[in-house]
Amino acid sequence: MDRPNPDHLTGTAGDVLGAYLRSQATAFLRALRLYEDSGAHGANGPDAPEGHDATRSLRGAARRIASSLATFRPVTETSWADALRTELVWLSSTLADEHAYGTRLTRLIDALHRLAGTPAPGLPAPRGGGSSLTVGSARAGALLERQLTLARTRAHTASLQALGSSRFHAVADAVAVLASEVPLDAVAAAGRVGDVLVPLSAVAEDRLTAAVADLPLSRASHPYNADALVADAHQDAPWHDVRRLLRVHRYAQEALGADVARLEAAGEALDRHRDAAEAAAASATAARTPRIAPATAYALGVLHADQRHEVEAARFAFHHIWLRTPVAAALPS
Amino acid sequence: MDRPNPDHLTGTAGDVLGAYLRSQATAFLRALRLYEDSGAHGANGPDAPEGHDATRSLRGAARRIASSLATFRPVTETSWADALRTELVWLSSTLADEHAYGTRLTRLIDALHRLAGTPAPGLPAPRGGGSSLTVGSARAGALLERQLTLARTRAHTASLQALGSSRFHAVADAVAVLASEVPLDAVAAAGRVGDVLVPLSAVAEDRLTAAVADLPLSRASHPYNADALVADAHQDAPWHDVRRLLRVHRYAQEALGADVARLEAAGEALDRHRDAAEAAAASATAARTPRIAPATAYALGVLHADQRHEVEAARFAFHHIWLRTPVAAALPS
Repeated sequence: MDRPNPDHLTGTAGDVLGAYLRSQATAFLRALRLYEDSGAHGANGPDAPEGHDATRSLRGAARRIASSLATFRPVTETSWADALRTELVWLSSTLADEHAYGTRLTRLIDALHRLAGTPAPGLPAPRGGGSSLTVGSARAGALLERQLTLARTRAHTASLQALGSSRFHAVADAVAVLASEVPLDAVAAAGRVGDVLVPLSAVAEDRLTAAVADLPLSRASHPYNADALVADAHQDAPWHDVRRLLRVHRYAQEALGADVARLEAAGEALDRHRDAAEAAAASATAARTPRIAPATAYALGVLHADQRHEVEAARFAFHHIWLRTPVAAALPS
Repeated sequence: MDRPNPDHLTGTAGDVLGAYLRSQATAFLRALRLYEDSGAHGANGPDAPEGHDATRSLRGAARRIASSLATFRPVTETSWADALRTELVWLSSTLADEHAYGTRLTRLIDALHRLAGTPAPGLPAPRGGGSSLTVGSARAGALLERQLTLARTRAHTASLQALGSSRFHAVADAVAVLASEVPLDAVAAAGRVGDVLVPLSAVAEDRLTAAVADLPLSRASHPYNADALVADAHQDAPWHDVRRLLRVHRYAQEALGADVARLEAAGEALDRHRDAAEAAAASATAARTPRIAPATAYALGVLHADQRHEVEAARFAFHHIWLRTPVAAALPS
């Protein structure tokens, strides 16, 4: 499933990598134009949906280009590639913050409503009704909204400044070059895909495999093991590492034209793992706000534990996707 | 597996039921003697372990006798059986409270230590150490200890009073009668086991089957469905009902000499369900104590959610035991 598409293996390494980088550069420039047309860089503020979609596409293309330049570095003109990669990493991480705070707030407010048995605003009411939010949950929601909206507004300002900076314009110019002509290493680029790109992508895959081997996957395979709730500041790090290495591997496979559906599904489980872990941390942080009521702190404690269980659920899901265990088939309906 | 042992099916209903009731009555009297010898009714207080074991055996025998007198009521001398049953239910529920408060406290303190990554007192430290309890967890533990120890002391006093009462002595006298001669209905007792006891036990089984059919088992089969955390005061009741009906069915099968290993395992899952639900409720109650610190309330919120996840885990376990799904075999090691 993850094997490179044989159609590509007959071209040169330069043909295949060049085509991928050009398509991603084009996607980057298209997203940039969409962003400028959306007016999101002006008065519409952080909630303009077109601006959201545009910056998301921009980040996706930036990550793919940066990742490919790293994985297939020897095939590129390395000093140029290294410089562009550094700038793209800066750009995508700057743009990511605003989106992250927004999804974190949505996740936490949704969880508060789910825990209370009430629909989140805008969703239909569940059959049989449900209790309304308790005073504690409502206050916890208001506190999280205040703290995360503030963080998100700051991140939005940082995004706007980044996208209006001369540093960004230089990145956009470099990507425009990439869209027409990819600076490659003449010798390496002339090699065959199977001799040049495949071994380089195998390095990325080996790093991923080694990191996955260090995960406590057997433990994660037992539902309700309650590991994720144990206070341990370091337990998430290996999973976050695998998430990053999996993305690098996925983009390399994408460049080689392979089917990445399973890698995508595994990546989504680890995205959920990361999102839930950060939401749990935000809840714990909010609980340390001075002078909050005990009922608010209690609701934040429940919310924290709920999100840590989402962390555990994401590990369980990743385990099944990774080892191709048919969860649904194993369980009676 | 749950079918009656064919060896018994050849005797009369009176022989089989009489033998079971006599053996349980003997167990009751033996436990009572142990209790009196342990001195638990005197100065040793609620922590004397022999007294614990004795009252546990006393409760087990009382429940079995009461349950059999209900299931097989037409085979007994009903007015005598109904009176004894009422008294045995009073006795076993009175004795159960002290034990319940004790195990609830142990469960909650163990959970606080598990969540903190520290061993509970008396257990070896985990490899790699672990953080000590936070101030909030320590205070939450102290609060729960205060509240549940008070409740347990009251329950212990109630137990002592019950076991010293003339009402109890009358129960013990009736059980002593049962140990030598079981008052039976002459006609029904002369019938064959297959004609009399098996149809009566089938009624108990049918009640259980109908109650299990009403459980959201398909939902429970999906790990991490997060249902148990939703605030809904009524969601546990059907599971508690099944727990009681399962026990009645198990004792009836025991009387018929059937293998009850699977019923026992399913019952243990539902005991865990009940214990976790009550521990979660105790944590929520403690959080409503006036003037507690926010950190204490936060720790109680985490603890509440942790125990509600134990509730969900117990439902998942029950589902697999009940439908004989090989959980371990379905999951890669």
